[in-house]
Amino acid sequence: MKETNDLKKMKILFPYIRKYQQLATKYNINDIFQDNGGKILQMLLVTGLQSLPGREGNDAIDENGQEYELKSVNILLTKSFSTHHHMNPTIITKYRLVPWIFAIYEWIELRKIYRLEPSKMEYWYSSWEKKWHGDNGKDINNPKIPLSYVEKNGTLIFDYSMYPF
Amino acid sequence: MKETNDLKKMKILFPYIRKYQQLATKYNINDIFQDNGGKILQMLLVTGLQSLPGREGNDAIDENGQEYELKSVNILLTKSFSTHHHMNPTIITKYRLVPWIFAIYEWIELRKIYRLEPSKMEYWYSSWEKKWHGDNGKDINNPKIPLSYVEKNGTLIFDYSMYPF
Repeated sequence: MKETNDLKKMKILFPYIRKYQQLATKYNINDIFQDNGGKILQMLLVTGLQSLPGREGNDAIDENGQEYELKSVNILLTKSFSTHHHMNPTIITKYRLVPWIFAIYEWIELRKIYRLEPSKMEYWYSSWEKKWHGDNGKDINNPKIPLSYVEKNGTLIFDYSMYPF
Repeated sequence: MKETNDLKKMKILFPYIRKYQQLATKYNINDIFQDNGGKILQMLLVTGLQSLPGREGNDAIDENGQEYELKSVNILLTKSFSTHHHMNPTIITKYRLVPWIFAIYEWIELRKIYRLEPSKMEYWYSSWEKKWHGDNGKDINNPKIPLSYVEKNGTLIFDYSMYPF
């Protein structure tokens, strides 16, 4: 093992990474280096939500027991949000009960967070249901929600330019 | 946005995360929070390898142009290494040319790295080829390599207990 300058830098930084992971662990995120773990921690802290342990997907919950769906996008790679790889009426029924939180990233840098109420998401639910029935009950593979729709119909609840860190 | 203690902690730690990402970017890792990016950086730094930009998979290269296959496992979740989701003779032909680097993690903590030469991997290549032909050319979905095989047949090239950071 050659002690390069970059290796030395990594060793100096890693104790801080460890502290960030410890904070993430409090929010049921066991690995910040996978599945956007380090970003989900930020989304939870900024929105004041808690994660739901042992639950599939990016679910979060507030102090009143209201659940939320969390999504993020790296706008330097794509301009739309992924949803679910097997979209069908069962999933949609669950989605109808919760507001959605959409986080906009540039790589690892959080830029903005929008909140969309169920009423603002209904347009998508109806169109996905229509498509699903039209396709004889074939699950839809990850229908997208464009960033432009989120910006137009959401409430901006975090803006990095106003609260930089 | 409520300025909780945890949010304050995150804001204090994030500049160090940013520096870790800047180091990772030098190694063609654009997002440490996805696909084990933050771990692959460590594997590269500890082994002295460079990443191959724009290449599929976890490829790395040394100063002589020899390429390597990088794998990692979280031994608190599973005791075997994933390989490839569509294993077939084309992939195996490529694999036969390179040593494999196996990194053992406990969540985000690097514990050990083993190196296996092509001759030590041949047992798997032959068995996968046999299975592929036996199944009439059906790609094998992610055949596993047990940790015990790696420990028995590999050369230990990094041990955290001897080089803690």
